[in-house]
Amino acid sequence: MAQLRDLKDELDIVIPTIRNLDFLEMWRPFFQPYHLIIVQDGDPSNTIGVPEGFDYELYNRNDVNRILGPKASCISFKDSACRCFGFLVSKKKYIFTIDDDCFVAKEPSGKEINALEQHIRNLLTPSTPLFFNTLYDPFANGSDFVRGYPFSLREGRPTAISHGLWLNIPDYDAPTQLVKPRERNTRYADAVMTIPKGTLFPMCGMNLAFDRELIGPAMYFGLMGDGQPIGRYDDMWAGWCAKVICDHLLLGVKTGLPYIWHSKASNPFVNLKKEYKGIYWQEDIIPFFQSIALREECTSVQDCYIELANKVKERLGFIDPYFEKLGDAMVTWIEAWNELNPPPPAQTATLAHPNVAMKN
Amino acid sequence: MAQLRDLKDELDIVIPTIRNLDFLEMWRPFFQPYHLIIVQDGDPSNTIGVPEGFDYELYNRNDVNRILGPKASCISFKDSACRCFGFLVSKKKYIFTIDDDCFVAKEPSGKEINALEQHIRNLLTPSTPLFFNTLYDPFANGSDFVRGYPFSLREGRPTAISHGLWLNIPDYDAPTQLVKPRERNTRYADAVMTIPKGTLFPMCGMNLAFDRELIGPAMYFGLMGDGQPIGRYDDMWAGWCAKVICDHLLLGVKTGLPYIWHSKASNPFVNLKKEYKGIYWQEDIIPFFQSIALREECTSVQDCYIELANKVKERLGFIDPYFEKLGDAMVTWIEAWNELNPPPPAQTATLAHPNVAMKN
Repeated sequence: MAQLRDLKDELDIVIPTIRNLDFLEMWRPFFQPYHLIIVQDGDPSNTIGVPEGFDYELYNRNDVNRILGPKASCISFKDSACRCFGFLVSKKKYIFTIDDDCFVAKEPSGKEINALEQHIRNLLTPSTPLFFNTLYDPFANGSDFVRGYPFSLREGRPTAISHGLWLNIPDYDAPTQLVKPRERNTRYADAVMTIPKGTLFPMCGMNLAFDRELIGPAMYFGLMGDGQPIGRYDDMWAGWCAKVICDHLLLGVKTGLPYIWHSKASNPFVNLKKEYKGIYWQEDIIPFFQSIALREECTSVQDCYIELANKVKERLGFIDPYFEKLGDAMVTWIEAWNELNPPPPAQTATLAHPNVAMKN
Repeated sequence: MAQLRDLKDELDIVIPTIRNLDFLEMWRPFFQPYHLIIVQDGDPSNTIGVPEGFDYELYNRNDVNRILGPKASCISFKDSACRCFGFLVSKKKYIFTIDDDCFVAKEPSGKEINALEQHIRNLLTPSTPLFFNTLYDPFANGSDFVRGYPFSLREGRPTAISHGLWLNIPDYDAPTQLVKPRERNTRYADAVMTIPKGTLFPMCGMNLAFDRELIGPAMYFGLMGDGQPIGRYDDMWAGWCAKVICDHLLLGVKTGLPYIWHSKASNPFVNLKKEYKGIYWQEDIIPFFQSIALREECTSVQDCYIELANKVKERLGFIDPYFEKLGDAMVTWIEAWNELNPPPPAQTATLAHPNVAMKN
């Protein structure tokens, strides 16, 4: 396999935090060449310490308010959902976002895992959303498409999202945390795969990379935390929306490698309080997302997202007035996105028509 | 995780072969408690040697003709597709089928892999076809459903098929074999996953287990080999048909562990001759299977399969007259299945209505 380029000048690392970023010390060999966007959550008068030698910009709530004005209402406060502000202000093609309790994991051989390098590999190689390859990523070293894989689909589709996993503390909901307080993830599955078209998945924001040009406007982490009825569904919301839009635009979503080491479990009692409405609401939300068909005319992510916002208000409003507010915030988010990311003058912002015939 | 029972009295091992079964020596500790059904391919006057101490029945072409009479026309000759005759004559609930060039593989730790035990684990635990779990099989030891997985779907669905993988010689088509003669699969991905509903996959018959009661009648390996225009699409055909029917009946298909050691690559030039029509035909066959909707009234595998046979004749006949013949053979297969496997008198043969609502 060809050596992939690094993306030093094309990728920002976005970190939401409320504390000093000592965790960066361990990531120094991997992250130092990259630019960091730190989104400070909570009290803006606190000072966040960043280890020497990193190139970064830091935004607190005052900055969010100043930059977005009234549109700042779409950015959550006191919740890691605020990370999406970093996606908005980045000017790079790629984003990698990571939580500040995530450390460098090791392969079974003991070798430290360069998570960012693996995400870049995932993003720079195609996805295979239209047919399952049983030997996993056919673009991985030493792998290929197996017998019976249609040749017309072997070019694959552009990869929009790379979803990485976690060793040690698994990403469980509060009820599972309560029932299995000691469960640790020790399974290193040496695999990357494309999540097939038409299949939803629970996207975790802890260790996530994406192509901002392909899918950025769909990476809105919703209204969570302070003043909102739920938390811990920010990344799930972004994942449902982004997957539906990727499917419509025939973009790929990969999951699997790389692993990070997730160091500490959050408090399950606090989590339960944040999650409990989400736990029953999702029983209606997921069938909603599973049944969505976006109009053919929606050929840009923004078009798709506005259509989705309308459907959320129309078809989820019955659950709780919150979804009216969320639908409005989704529209505000797109307005903010377009304001901060105007399309380059000479180009159109639309993608090629997505309904590419699969045969011949 | 609870200890799973072994299936000594409930599982047959089906082996198609043209040679002495010395490969069984290596499998002795794992297979000896089980009953073997050996389907001898090619010249029935040859004698197949079976190592001492195995409990087996052996069928050659004369036996196939004697048992099935005119219906024997649906069983391929001079092709490993003949293995499905073993599925027909078995009286057990579960089948494991393996090729005679497959040996015991080792985990990275050096431990020998009991492939059959892992298949049994896969079959006896539920599948999750309706939503993707990012930590793979939630029923594996030390694993569970991740945050955001709908609770209403955590019971899963019954598992019909367990598709195992191969270390060493990967299951490549002839063109890939020709281009990459030295590629070996050394990646041990410690994962089992459900192939989502609505997604097709290339099912390989080399290392495969299934629940005969749930999906047996769909496990027809088609018309291949002697007198037919293609070969090496027998397992693919069974996989496409079985997956479409599993999706309709909400049954699960798992892939991943266990690995076997695939010892030798078949001749790519011979393979190319067998495959080349399949390679271009599948560009039409796969969209056909991707677009199939079976009628709600089809509630048994047999119903589904007859419906599929009719659609094959109707919608694939334009490719080649072969598909008319194949559609007829599919009907003959079901007639043979029903003759050899009459439903128990006091019970109805239909499954529960498949359109189980996913919510609440």
